[in-house]
Amino acid sequence: MTETTRTSRRHFLKGGLIAGGAMAAGPVLASGDPAILEVQPWANQLGEGVDARPYGVPSPFENHVRRRNVEWLTADPVSSVNFTPLHELDGVITPNGLCFERHHGGIAEVDPAKYRLMINGLVDRELVFTLDDLKRFPRVNRAYFLECAANSGMEWRGAQLNGCQFTHGMIHNVLYTGVPLRTILAEAGVKTNGKWILPEGADAAAMTRSIPIEKALDDCLVAFAMNGEALRPEQGYPVRLVVPGWEGNMWIKWLRRIEVGDMPWHHREETSKYTDLFADGKARRFTWEMDAKSVITNPSPQAPILHGKGPTVLTGVAWSGRGTIKEVHVTLDGGRNWHQARIDGPSWDKSIHRFYFDFEWDGRPLLLQSRAVDSTGYVQPTKNELRAVRGENSIYHNNGIQTWHVRANGEAENVEIS
Amino acid sequence: MTETTRTSRRHFLKGGLIAGGAMAAGPVLASGDPAILEVQPWANQLGEGVDARPYGVPSPFENHVRRRNVEWLTADPVSSVNFTPLHELDGVITPNGLCFERHHGGIAEVDPAKYRLMINGLVDRELVFTLDDLKRFPRVNRAYFLECAANSGMEWRGAQLNGCQFTHGMIHNVLYTGVPLRTILAEAGVKTNGKWILPEGADAAAMTRSIPIEKALDDCLVAFAMNGEALRPEQGYPVRLVVPGWEGNMWIKWLRRIEVGDMPWHHREETSKYTDLFADGKARRFTWEMDAKSVITNPSPQAPILHGKGPTVLTGVAWSGRGTIKEVHVTLDGGRNWHQARIDGPSWDKSIHRFYFDFEWDGRPLLLQSRAVDSTGYVQPTKNELRAVRGENSIYHNNGIQTWHVRANGEAENVEIS
Repeated sequence: MTETTRTSRRHFLKGGLIAGGAMAAGPVLASGDPAILEVQPWANQLGEGVDARPYGVPSPFENHVRRRNVEWLTADPVSSVNFTPLHELDGVITPNGLCFERHHGGIAEVDPAKYRLMINGLVDRELVFTLDDLKRFPRVNRAYFLECAANSGMEWRGAQLNGCQFTHGMIHNVLYTGVPLRTILAEAGVKTNGKWILPEGADAAAMTRSIPIEKALDDCLVAFAMNGEALRPEQGYPVRLVVPGWEGNMWIKWLRRIEVGDMPWHHREETSKYTDLFADGKARRFTWEMDAKSVITNPSPQAPILHGKGPTVLTGVAWSGRGTIKEVHVTLDGGRNWHQARIDGPSWDKSIHRFYFDFEWDGRPLLLQSRAVDSTGYVQPTKNELRAVRGENSIYHNNGIQTWHVRANGEAENVEIS
Repeated sequence: MTETTRTSRRHFLKGGLIAGGAMAAGPVLASGDPAILEVQPWANQLGEGVDARPYGVPSPFENHVRRRNVEWLTADPVSSVNFTPLHELDGVITPNGLCFERHHGGIAEVDPAKYRLMINGLVDRELVFTLDDLKRFPRVNRAYFLECAANSGMEWRGAQLNGCQFTHGMIHNVLYTGVPLRTILAEAGVKTNGKWILPEGADAAAMTRSIPIEKALDDCLVAFAMNGEALRPEQGYPVRLVVPGWEGNMWIKWLRRIEVGDMPWHHREETSKYTDLFADGKARRFTWEMDAKSVITNPSPQAPILHGKGPTVLTGVAWSGRGTIKEVHVTLDGGRNWHQARIDGPSWDKSIHRFYFDFEWDGRPLLLQSRAVDSTGYVQPTKNELRAVRGENSIYHNNGIQTWHVRANGEAENVEIS
């Protein structure tokens, strides 16, 4: 890098961090900051050794970074949901300890030695695999988002929950290791009239969903590892189904059986639930694909601007069940002006993308929105555009644009603008 | 997918899982496996709810998956190392709880509110940043391996530690979020005679290393997040330096100061340690880059073949401090025949790559080796090739080919072959 280039990069923060009189905690000359002169306790005493924690945990100063549930939302926590703290995360990987949970009968604590996966129905050979058997098939590594169909569902009628953790936190993004489902189905031999599969969970809810054979033979995985290690119990340990781009309840956890049939099963979770009720009382069914969506995670109600005006990092996440994210647009003024955000980090198919918009905040109120465009050209709609088509009965598949109002004091709230 | 294709994919495991008489636990017809007929306790009782674990942990059945230290290796665990359980992992991301640790004065437990980063020395403006200040610069997301220079060091004289966790486990691979170091140096303004930097840690060891300005302005990061969440305490919370491709001790943790100078500092950790002692008593210094390297993680001494002959997944990891991995070759017979391994998952610059070789084991003993070729064309050498050049005094930079001997019973051991 030449000296000229270096000079041109200088003073990035001049207008804000250095000269900004309103700064709460900007950098200063070393002699002016008392904290730098203090000898901190961690600098003059020995800390814990390498034998202290065989499996590490976050800093105690990060105890506020946690999954959160909402008590009034469901009758019982064993059939409920908690939410990923999106506003505390960065990059594209959701740490395993913070991946949101949705159970229908609590977490099954499965003994891997007693784990079995049965393949039955319209197959040439009904088979039962142990976990070790599954690990003998060629495996692959793929990152995918999992989003609950009900993510943002409480916003249809304008619930305006106060934070992206609650409005958008029923999502996580994980690098899975597993065996393509088509490999396992091929081992059993799908008969020519085998047109659907019914994956079934080993938990007390025996969760089931019907999936067309085309999807099963396309990109589904029988996964046993997430982000490098064994699946977590609440994510289906030891084996879950991965159904890329499709709603989360189809990703059967604690997978114990896959039946092959010639018709869908019309089970509980695809009739009484996970259907989209329209104003006329009819319901859309089998709405599997998750449409393109995005949300600004910072600033947001749980992550206000604390530093005053000047250089500000706006960031968020975007994803599509139909491919990659091509562009994310952000507005600071409720849609009058749109700016292209910078997408940084991996751009994987059906996986969360991270975007940034670095701007100088003038200290005036903001109306923040983000709008994702996926690789098919689909543009994320407004909530009102969705309501015009589907009414307000819906719980599922709300991928509308989210608005945060940032006040002059940096605090943010969930608002709707027409 | 056509029926023809499906049929051709069938019977992958025919010779092994189905027909293999020697199988310990192959799949069978459903009616033949008693375990499938038992109702397991997790299938008829409710599990923990979504309020049970705000931050999740692995299954109790995975308690053996842990970092391990070696008591005899160092005088005290506060200046020691533990090892990543490579044989228990898959994919390319090391989970944060399992990233190996190396401390020189124990884990500094830094209060982020009192965290400061000073930039001083040959700069136009000496600056002090708070953590919040650092988060106002434009940030990026990049995955890099961190390998201790001493990884595999005990193998120079043939220690033959019994497992890849101990021979190769001083490595982890993480997706970092942070600010390019050049952005921060530009803010301070590096003077024209500023040719080196000295990053310094806030721990009791005040770890320091000299780094040439060219590297500092190239790809180094001032990182505050790993795999999506805040850095872990043992990895430098709240801020560490990332020095891609270079030996791990330079990635200063608990980063509190960066001094800019016109010469290297010749500090303790680049004179008495982290130098390569030759047979004639002279030492190589400033050997920063980590050469291309690989290891088979499964099968290996800690991960024997338990399933008998038939379809077998061989897997391992490869990396280079100079770029990506282009090819990995594996041999089953001590180098007589080499096979191209399948690299699967992300191929990032200076980042761990995952490779597989799926083969039919005939049950006879194996001599397993892997050999990485990086994007510069460099080929991983044998241990004896390294010894011929550097003698046996070395502790650091052993990237030689590793051999595992697998016996007919599936057990594996660390061996050397000439």
